[in-house]
Amino acid sequence: MAMVNSAEYRQRIMKMRPNVYIDGELVGRDDPRLEQGINVMSQTFDVAHEPEYEGVMTATSHLTGEKINRFTHIHQSVEDLLNKQKMTRLYCQKLGGCVQRCMGIDATNALSVVTYEADQKYGTEYNKRFLKWLANFQKNDLAGNCAQTDVKGDRSKRPHQQADPDLYLRVVEKKSDGIIVRGAKAHNTNAPYVDEIVAIPTRFLTPEEGDWAVAFAIPSDWEGVHLSCRAAAPRARKRLDSPGSHYGDVESLTIFDDVFVPWERVFLCGEHEFGGQLALLFALYHRHSYTGCKPAVTDIMMGATALAAEYNGVPNAQHVKGKLAELISVAELVYAAGIAAGVTGQKAPSGTYVPDVIYCNVGRRHAGLNIYHEHETVADVGGGLIATLPTEGDFYNEVTGPLLSKYIMRNPNVSAENQHRLFRTLGDMVCSSMSGISQIAGIHGGGSPVMEEIAILGSYDIEAKKALVKYLAGIKD
Amino acid sequence: MAMVNSAEYRQRIMKMRPNVYIDGELVGRDDPRLEQGINVMSQTFDVAHEPEYEGVMTATSHLTGEKINRFTHIHQSVEDLLNKQKMTRLYCQKLGGCVQRCMGIDATNALSVVTYEADQKYGTEYNKRFLKWLANFQKNDLAGNCAQTDVKGDRSKRPHQQADPDLYLRVVEKKSDGIIVRGAKAHNTNAPYVDEIVAIPTRFLTPEEGDWAVAFAIPSDWEGVHLSCRAAAPRARKRLDSPGSHYGDVESLTIFDDVFVPWERVFLCGEHEFGGQLALLFALYHRHSYTGCKPAVTDIMMGATALAAEYNGVPNAQHVKGKLAELISVAELVYAAGIAAGVTGQKAPSGTYVPDVIYCNVGRRHAGLNIYHEHETVADVGGGLIATLPTEGDFYNEVTGPLLSKYIMRNPNVSAENQHRLFRTLGDMVCSSMSGISQIAGIHGGGSPVMEEIAILGSYDIEAKKALVKYLAGIKD
Amino acid sequence: MAMVNSAEYRQRIMKMRPNVYIDGELVGRDDPRLEQGINVMSQTFDVAHEPEYEGVMTATSHLTGEKINRFTHIHQSVEDLLNKQKMTRLYCQKLGGCVQRCMGIDATNALSVVTYEADQKYGTEYNKRFLKWLANFQKNDLAGNCAQTDVKGDRSKRPHQQADPDLYLRVVEKKSDGIIVRGAKAHNTNAPYVDEIVAIPTRFLTPEEGDWAVAFAIPSDWEGVHLSCRAAAPRARKRLDSPGSHYGDVESLTIFDDVFVPWERVFLCGEHEFGGQLALLFALYHRHSYTGCKPAVTDIMMGATALAAEYNGVPNAQHVKGKLAELISVAELVYAAGIAAGVTGQKAPSGTYVPDVIYCNVGRRHAGLNIYHEHETVADVGGGLIATLPTEGDFYNEVTGPLLSKYIMRNPNVSAENQHRLFRTLGDMVCSSMSGISQIAGIHGGGSPVMEEIAILGSYDIEAKKALVKYLAGIKD
Amino acid sequence: MAMVNSAEYRQRIMKMRPNVYIDGELVGRDDPRLEQGINVMSQTFDVAHEPEYEGVMTATSHLTGEKINRFTHIHQSVEDLLNKQKMTRLYCQKLGGCVQRCMGIDATNALSVVTYEADQKYGTEYNKRFLKWLANFQKNDLAGNCAQTDVKGDRSKRPHQQADPDLYLRVVEKKSDGIIVRGAKAHNTNAPYVDEIVAIPTRFLTPEEGDWAVAFAIPSDWEGVHLSCRAAAPRARKRLDSPGSHYGDVESLTIFDDVFVPWERVFLCGEHEFGGQLALLFALYHRHSYTGCKPAVTDIMMGATALAAEYNGVPNAQHVKGKLAELISVAELVYAAGIAAGVTGQKAPSGTYVPDVIYCNVGRRHAGLNIYHEHETVADVGGGLIATLPTEGDFYNEVTGPLLSKYIMRNPNVSAENQHRLFRTLGDMVCSSMSGISQIAGIHGGGSPVMEEIAILGSYDIEAKKALVKYLAGIKD
Repeated sequence: MAMVNSAEYRQRIMKMRPNVYIDGELVGRDDPRLEQGINVMSQTFDVAHEPEYEGVMTATSHLTGEKINRFTHIHQSVEDLLNKQKMTRLYCQKLGGCVQRCMGIDATNALSVVTYEADQKYGTEYNKRFLKWLANFQKNDLAGNCAQTDVKGDRSKRPHQQADPDLYLRVVEKKSDGIIVRGAKAHNTNAPYVDEIVAIPTRFLTPEEGDWAVAFAIPSDWEGVHLSCRAAAPRARKRLDSPGSHYGDVESLTIFDDVFVPWERVFLCGEHEFGGQLALLFALYHRHSYTGCKPAVTDIMMGATALAAEYNGVPNAQHVKGKLAELISVAELVYAAGIAAGVTGQKAPSGTYVPDVIYCNVGRRHAGLNIYHEHETVADVGGGLIATLPTEGDFYNEVTGPLLSKYIMRNPNVSAENQHRLFRTLGDMVCSSMSGISQIAGIHGGGSPVMEEIAILGSYDIEAKKALVKYLAGIKD
Repeated sequence: MAMVNSAEYRQRIMKMRPNVYIDGELVGRDDPRLEQGINVMSQTFDVAHEPEYEGVMTATSHLTGEKINRFTHIHQSVEDLLNKQKMTRLYCQKLGGCVQRCMGIDATNALSVVTYEADQKYGTEYNKRFLKWLANFQKNDLAGNCAQTDVKGDRSKRPHQQADPDLYLRVVEKKSDGIIVRGAKAHNTNAPYVDEIVAIPTRFLTPEEGDWAVAFAIPSDWEGVHLSCRAAAPRARKRLDSPGSHYGDVESLTIFDDVFVPWERVFLCGEHEFGGQLALLFALYHRHSYTGCKPAVTDIMMGATALAAEYNGVPNAQHVKGKLAELISVAELVYAAGIAAGVTGQKAPSGTYVPDVIYCNVGRRHAGLNIYHEHETVADVGGGLIATLPTEGDFYNEVTGPLLSKYIMRNPNVSAENQHRLFRTLGDMVCSSMSGISQIAGIHGGGSPVMEEIAILGSYDIEAKKALVKYLAGIKD
Repeated sequence: MAMVNSAEYRQRIMKMRPNVYIDGELVGRDDPRLEQGINVMSQTFDVAHEPEYEGVMTATSHLTGEKINRFTHIHQSVEDLLNKQKMTRLYCQKLGGCVQRCMGIDATNALSVVTYEADQKYGTEYNKRFLKWLANFQKNDLAGNCAQTDVKGDRSKRPHQQADPDLYLRVVEKKSDGIIVRGAKAHNTNAPYVDEIVAIPTRFLTPEEGDWAVAFAIPSDWEGVHLSCRAAAPRARKRLDSPGSHYGDVESLTIFDDVFVPWERVFLCGEHEFGGQLALLFALYHRHSYTGCKPAVTDIMMGATALAAEYNGVPNAQHVKGKLAELISVAELVYAAGIAAGVTGQKAPSGTYVPDVIYCNVGRRHAGLNIYHEHETVADVGGGLIATLPTEGDFYNEVTGPLLSKYIMRNPNVSAENQHRLFRTLGDMVCSSMSGISQIAGIHGGGSPVMEEIAILGSYDIEAKKALVKYLAGIKD
Repeated sequence: MAMVNSAEYRQRIMKMRPNVYIDGELVGRDDPRLEQGINVMSQTFDVAHEPEYEGVMTATSHLTGEKINRFTHIHQSVEDLLNKQKMTRLYCQKLGGCVQRCMGIDATNALSVVTYEADQKYGTEYNKRFLKWLANFQKNDLAGNCAQTDVKGDRSKRPHQQADPDLYLRVVEKKSDGIIVRGAKAHNTNAPYVDEIVAIPTRFLTPEEGDWAVAFAIPSDWEGVHLSCRAAAPRARKRLDSPGSHYGDVESLTIFDDVFVPWERVFLCGEHEFGGQLALLFALYHRHSYTGCKPAVTDIMMGATALAAEYNGVPNAQHVKGKLAELISVAELVYAAGIAAGVTGQKAPSGTYVPDVIYCNVGRRHAGLNIYHEHETVADVGGGLIATLPTEGDFYNEVTGPLLSKYIMRNPNVSAENQHRLFRTLGDMVCSSMSGISQIAGIHGGGSPVMEEIAILGSYDIEAKKALVKYLAGIKD
């Protein structure tokens, strides 16, 4: 079995060369601000060993036939697509948010398809290289991320039109043994604590943009890579510990400062049309991931709403019920879209299964359009105390402690401590820097709704729908 | 093959005893106001013979192994559920709206499940009777409808609490050879031109409401049945004929004026808990139908929007694209919900397949919440001319005709006649009594969004979601 | 007193030369299809005499000091603006919809400002002509309309770029005694039964578009004018008469077939910049009118919703209350915007008061964005019976009549006839060709929300708001 | 002139007895976590002296005729109501958020009305006491807050039904020289740095709830008062200072631990009906304040959106324009509602002016319904960088600093530092614990939308609207 546990994962990560910057300091992987992020990843190593998740959190490698962590798997069937979606929802439910490791599985699946097709057209050997890299990735149960979003400079200009050509990551030199790349990737979730950073293009590319059509994978502490990071986590608890407060997120602006990448790690280099395809295909897989993770986020929101209503003494209020029905509808419509995308998924020439474009995009779009409203719902039902809950220490001060325990009481069947626990957790969820990040990730992560609209309009057969109306109207062109 | 064509269907219908009332007159089935409704049903007899729809519009009877019209089929697999959804969308696309015959298939499938379960519990023989009736139904390719919605009287009172107990259809006498029923069913689509009216309860029933737990099937011209009808169709065309203008809808207030039903046609009589189950199960099947028909309605709306934009000369306007993406998202989310409902459908003890409750309901709810906005979109992009288009005759008057042809011109590549055709059709679609009916059916048909919310909340495991939050918050009860 | 009653008004209208076309026929003003529209206008002549509306429905002429019908008045104060808004709401409440005569007052007020300013710049005498025409208009209490919206052809092209230059109304010849104009105006409410049609441009005009910068007033039966009309009214009642069923609307495509206009009736001819200003200023006044009429429409919708809930037996249902609060909020926010527009209105150089641009536009936009939802609300609370109510005659047929009276019962305190009355009226309101027109007029009448957005963005000081953020961020350019 | 400056204000505050608790510590008013809140209040002392705001930020005392800070004024006219709304918007624009001192003016105005009316009915002398207290308040330019929201316990129970009667603040003893009160008030903005805390009831009270009908004012460091506080402010800047980062908010759970209040400071004690009136009247004034402050918040949001679009290089993108138009519409509809409320305000028997209930409530409701969407808009246009901007220190580190300055570049006409400034500020605005508080305050502050709906339904004449429909339908009861 090619699966490790979190202790081994942590050990690997802790050995890395320090190239993480936080607030002006160069720090090691053991910096406490990275801890909550590492905790998230750790779960994906440990839970996969639990028997009840066999076949969901695990898969069978098509390379070796061995049992592997599903996060390292290349989808071989509709079943795989459905299980990946299901796995994503389960992890995100447990973690109260983003599982992060989907970045890697989505990047590798996209590479499995595009490297194959590029080779078919150009006689290159990207796929061979990729599969060799993948064999190791599966065998050692490595964690990958995906460095996709370039910093992009002026949004009204294409990559080759920017004042500074480095505003999209590009090849600045090709050498006999590899390439030199320069640029920076933004919003790079979990970069400091993955084994491998997988870099791919961020958009369609024109023929003059071959230098920007580059894909590769390197360890996250590779020479020349600087990770300028922002960590976010719930406010640390002093005495009121809770599982949820141990999970957080680190975002990196990942700078490639003239980084050398040896050819065996280069998976695309110059084929502009495949650069664009790779960008879209990762996005597609990632939007399918969102049909798993966003329902989990909504699950948490609906649980929070229902619990807040119960603790406030109004579990059966009509407006609470309506709001719950709305949250359920969002979660399950998005999840249904992912199921439909899986069921109607297609096998690519490489053998990899690809979910349906339209269903993935309508699902991700619906999730993105509702995220703020979900926060609003929790805040609405929870009430102002979420924002004005006295700080933790006051609950343990000898003067204020007993008074706060008296005055926090609502539903008399719920203890003061549990009331306190709930409202502190609600604060983490919808009134903290974490909640801001959750909102913005909810819009933009994996592509904002407007990006999904572009994808939808690019694939949908509107002409067929116009033909229906022409027929009904008796219009014959 | 147990399938007839529309000529045979019409022949059967035309023979019926006159019991249809329109605007105070007792009329025959050949009344021109019924014609557009009959045209709709006729399609379901003829299209089923087209080879390209084999296996979608047709099915294999589980009773006889014969090929039958799918509208008479009892679902034997997930595939059947998916095909029924697909068939529904295809028909509604062709018809520019409601195919109507789904009423029958949804009623019979619900009966196949509930009669079986009632028999298991009570040792009755409802299922045997039902299957015998069904054999004939399939063999002769009969059209059924479903008389479900009672007139309901005071909405704040239960059936047995009404000032007049007849406000919900009930058994008023049981005799050796059958029962006498009294009451009225509202919103009874296609009642005047179906072969069989299938009557079932409309809601959960309490133990004291056994008299209201009644289900049966009778021909639509049966003694004691009065059909008080309202027909709606696009305004008849004088010279600008179009396929769409030949399709319409007839709604009946179906009055059971002390109607005798022989026992072999009685499928439930007194078992209150199965009355409620039957009501819900029909609703469930019917909501699954909506995941097929509503996407078709949206398909028409998006085709209309796209064509209006083209004819107005603004096919690529940013706001038009955004609106199209929104319409596509509504159509495909609803359709995805139906797919997910089918894929996760379950086999009932009777062998019949039942779609998933949650997915059906979130799908139907989403459709219901968007119908008005879809009309708004067509009106928004089409413009005021939809409402103010001069009447048809003026386009053929010698003074005004040429002037109207001059002044209706927009996109110069589209002929004046086609401009005229489109805007007249848009008028039918979103500015007519038909459009009002389409809007109201879009909310209330199959149960309004608030009914779906009740169904969702009744089935969803909210406690599991509260448990997720308790875990994250460290709350241990 | 320069005010007539409806008898005199009708007499004038009936004398007009037949130039109205309906469905291919040339008809007189006594055609029954015009009757409901004429009834609407008649109210504006009669109600103005009622003492309780003194000062609201009437005003004091600034030309003569005489009491006049406010619909012929030029606003001389903030009070006038507020009273015009109030008058509009009151009339529309009584009529259950559009009062129609606002077209005239909005056109004349715009002309009073623009003719003055054009004269100031060019030394023309448009204002003098206009005031002479106005004196007669006030003295005889004439009804005016406004022919503004050109048919516009290809929406992506400007007037002078159209394949056919006549797609915007234009001057085709200037003569010593007047001008010849050609073109057509769409969506021309009440044209067949006003005394005077006031024609003005529909949009900003460029310097090469002087020929399209033309404004004038002519009697509605003037030589060369053809009115191609579409009349809409509630379905005529046979026995269940009601005030509301007597009011309707007529829309004309008003064709100017090389029409001669003598100079004394020409109020702008060639000054392109004032053509654009006139278009915008009429739109501004008209949007201010909408802050009066749309709240009245919403008043009717909320009354209908509340009454439907009462008749259905659920007057206190939580969701009904929420919907009522929403309707009230729409009505009163829009009305508040009109008050704010009036209170902050400014005096133009001509002495005429002009309401504030931003408030008028945010008010009209809010109304336009909510109209479909208002219909949805009535349909939602009223229920499916609105769409499926048996036809009127069946309520009086000897077989079905008593049965329908039995089965329409809901709230037992409301008579069957009143239930019938309400649901038939609801059908007229939200399930009829009238309702379609009301919806489309609700979006597009006076300019659709997107037009208001353009007006808002054109006038609002966004730079000042950017400066606030720059200050807070410490950004100094 | 009875106006001080901020230095004097601070001096007063700093002298106070320590009774502020933060995170378990008892701290002085000089604790740095209170600093940003005190900075906000300070502005209200200093800006009032600027000549350009004369008459807006200042007023004339009706007690003395002296010029006073408007925040200490009792409204004597419609003009005063309009100026208070205007003042509120101006301050909040400058502060980038809540001005906080409105709490005091709204509480005192409500007391001016209710004490008078209670005296009229009961012959008490609350008004006399209040006016004496007010004279000192105005003379010394004191800052007040309003302790209204009780902690409320079980939301499904009334005050006297709670398991613990102290969950609503109440009188526990009446003595010859004063009263003893016990309870706690939540969400008590600015309590630690005001001169006077004004306590009033939070809801309608029944006859058995006289003990809860209590109002009084005491200094914020009064014996027995404990302030358990939560401070929120933008993350402190190290090198990138900005005005906005100096403003913050402190919320107190204000505990009245058997507090003695002398009679001269008691303004209501036992008159339950006036307790309810006072609660509603403060809410009304405060909702009118929201029609001033919320447009300012939206002003900031729209400035941020426009600036983000400019810096991103897409100032003229269609969707950006649409979003700006929407933000403007929200701001100006809410402001218009406040103007309408002022203009139609009425004079209470005490002489104080009271804004209109309906307009205040529809305005506040509209603001509350839009706050999350406004945050969403900024996040949508700003992009993911708002959430993932590297921490400040990295911009000044020698390795990462130059690289971040390179890669943050977007619109090439904007310096890297200004890009940095903007995105850091956007982070403060929509991705921080401050933004969470702003969202929740946006829903619940002054009463959530559902509270406004209750107020609206309680005052609106729905029967008149039903009568309109009855008339149109021909229904005569």
